[in-house]
Amino acid sequence: MNTSHSAPIGIFDSGIGGLTVAKAVMKALPGEDIIYFGDTARVPYGIKSEETVRMYALQITRFLLEKGVKMILIACNTVSASAKEEIIQAAGDVPVLDVITAGTQAAIGFDNHSRIGVIGTLATVNSKAYERSIHEIEPQADVIQQACPLLVPLAEEGWVDNEIAKQTLSIYLKPFESKKIDSLILGCTHYPLFKEVIPEVLQDSDTIIIDSADSIALTSKQRLSELDLLNQNGGKFQCFVSDRPQRFQELAERFLGRDLTDVSVIGLN
Amino acid sequence: MNTSHSAPIGIFDSGIGGLTVAKAVMKALPGEDIIYFGDTARVPYGIKSEETVRMYALQITRFLLEKGVKMILIACNTVSASAKEEIIQAAGDVPVLDVITAGTQAAIGFDNHSRIGVIGTLATVNSKAYERSIHEIEPQADVIQQACPLLVPLAEEGWVDNEIAKQTLSIYLKPFESKKIDSLILGCTHYPLFKEVIPEVLQDSDTIIIDSADSIALTSKQRLSELDLLNQNGGKFQCFVSDRPQRFQELAERFLGRDLTDVSVIGLN
Repeated sequence: MNTSHSAPIGIFDSGIGGLTVAKAVMKALPGEDIIYFGDTARVPYGIKSEETVRMYALQITRFLLEKGVKMILIACNTVSASAKEEIIQAAGDVPVLDVITAGTQAAIGFDNHSRIGVIGTLATVNSKAYERSIHEIEPQADVIQQACPLLVPLAEEGWVDNEIAKQTLSIYLKPFESKKIDSLILGCTHYPLFKEVIPEVLQDSDTIIIDSADSIALTSKQRLSELDLLNQNGGKFQCFVSDRPQRFQELAERFLGRDLTDVSVIGLN
Repeated sequence: MNTSHSAPIGIFDSGIGGLTVAKAVMKALPGEDIIYFGDTARVPYGIKSEETVRMYALQITRFLLEKGVKMILIACNTVSASAKEEIIQAAGDVPVLDVITAGTQAAIGFDNHSRIGVIGTLATVNSKAYERSIHEIEPQADVIQQACPLLVPLAEEGWVDNEIAKQTLSIYLKPFESKKIDSLILGCTHYPLFKEVIPEVLQDSDTIIIDSADSIALTSKQRLSELDLLNQNGGKFQCFVSDRPQRFQELAERFLGRDLTDVSVIGLN
């Protein structure tokens, strides 16, 4: 375990979507150094087999450990669903947090949340990882899941509040209409970009929208504090990607809300 | 060069979209054996850098050559745009055809086609490969390109003729409204799935829709005939993928129009 306060926090995702997590961590922990890895050469993980996702996730975990991180945040829902246990094992003493557990705990944290909606990619929904994670804490909770494969490309196209986005959300959120849900977990790092439009489409102002980027940022702050590993004197953000795709800079700004300056391309095997 | 009539035709794509090409080849050349490679572990190529796309394409080319193919069809527009020359060089005596050249020749083949529309992925459009390919034959032609990043995910969701598909196409095809185009090249192997709806959205019955899957199938028949390499006695279809994603079977049927039976998963490096 890296017990140095000044060691960085490692965050990774299949691509750039996890930058919404990095952004939330920067806000909650402005004094921490962050190393981000986005597997842009192999994105998206959501359509790949569990074996492949596990192999990729372990390669990235080793990379972050070599960089001396004091904590690893799995910012990718697909990886959280398929490879969390393997990463925890590979990380040894280094604490590992994941967006699914963080989102689940946030949803359960509100009173009377017995009916929880989850939206995510096909892989996340098919893995039933949110369902398992929720039932571990709240076995009686009613979990209603819905895959929304078009939301990621819509977010990357920048169509997050036009008519097409609203109609697409109307179709995907239809199953929640008849079953009044208490909270809706945004189970994909791209989905916070639809945070303004979702309540409008849901037409239910009582439903609490759970943004797991915010949830994991708060959990990491809590854990670092418990471990006495908080850093007040950093603030550097280093970004590694496995490929620099076209429109990378444009997309990164959309997700991070600011320019990316320190970006290196690095291959993993 | 493999001069055996009974040698298979190799077809490859970044994923399963190229199955529209395989389908067209089966129709045009029912007596040929076909080996298809879909790089489902690393799809989509369209958002990756040219260097990465070239590296992947050469790995697949080597794989097909080891299988003893007598001809290689590049069914992927991104690869045709970024790596055609490298593949031709690597293939030596084995003839290589690509969807961009085939689509271009089909578009030019019609009389008075001086104004040609092209729709494709961001990578294909940014590469300007169709523009270059058209201008090589018809330097005076007016080429109007439009990237349509949402069409691939829409096709994979099966939303090819609903209101969302029509509205999305309306936005993407708007640039062609004011400029009357003679033909429109479907510059992505997924796009033939929208072949019914595009004329309706275009509102111009004179525009000829060029499906490059059909074009490359006809060109390959012509070339094999010239080389005296046609086979009448085969008909086997063997499919290799680098990963078997969820919903693979369902998607494959949608693209191929029939069940896939002989599928092997194989890793490439």
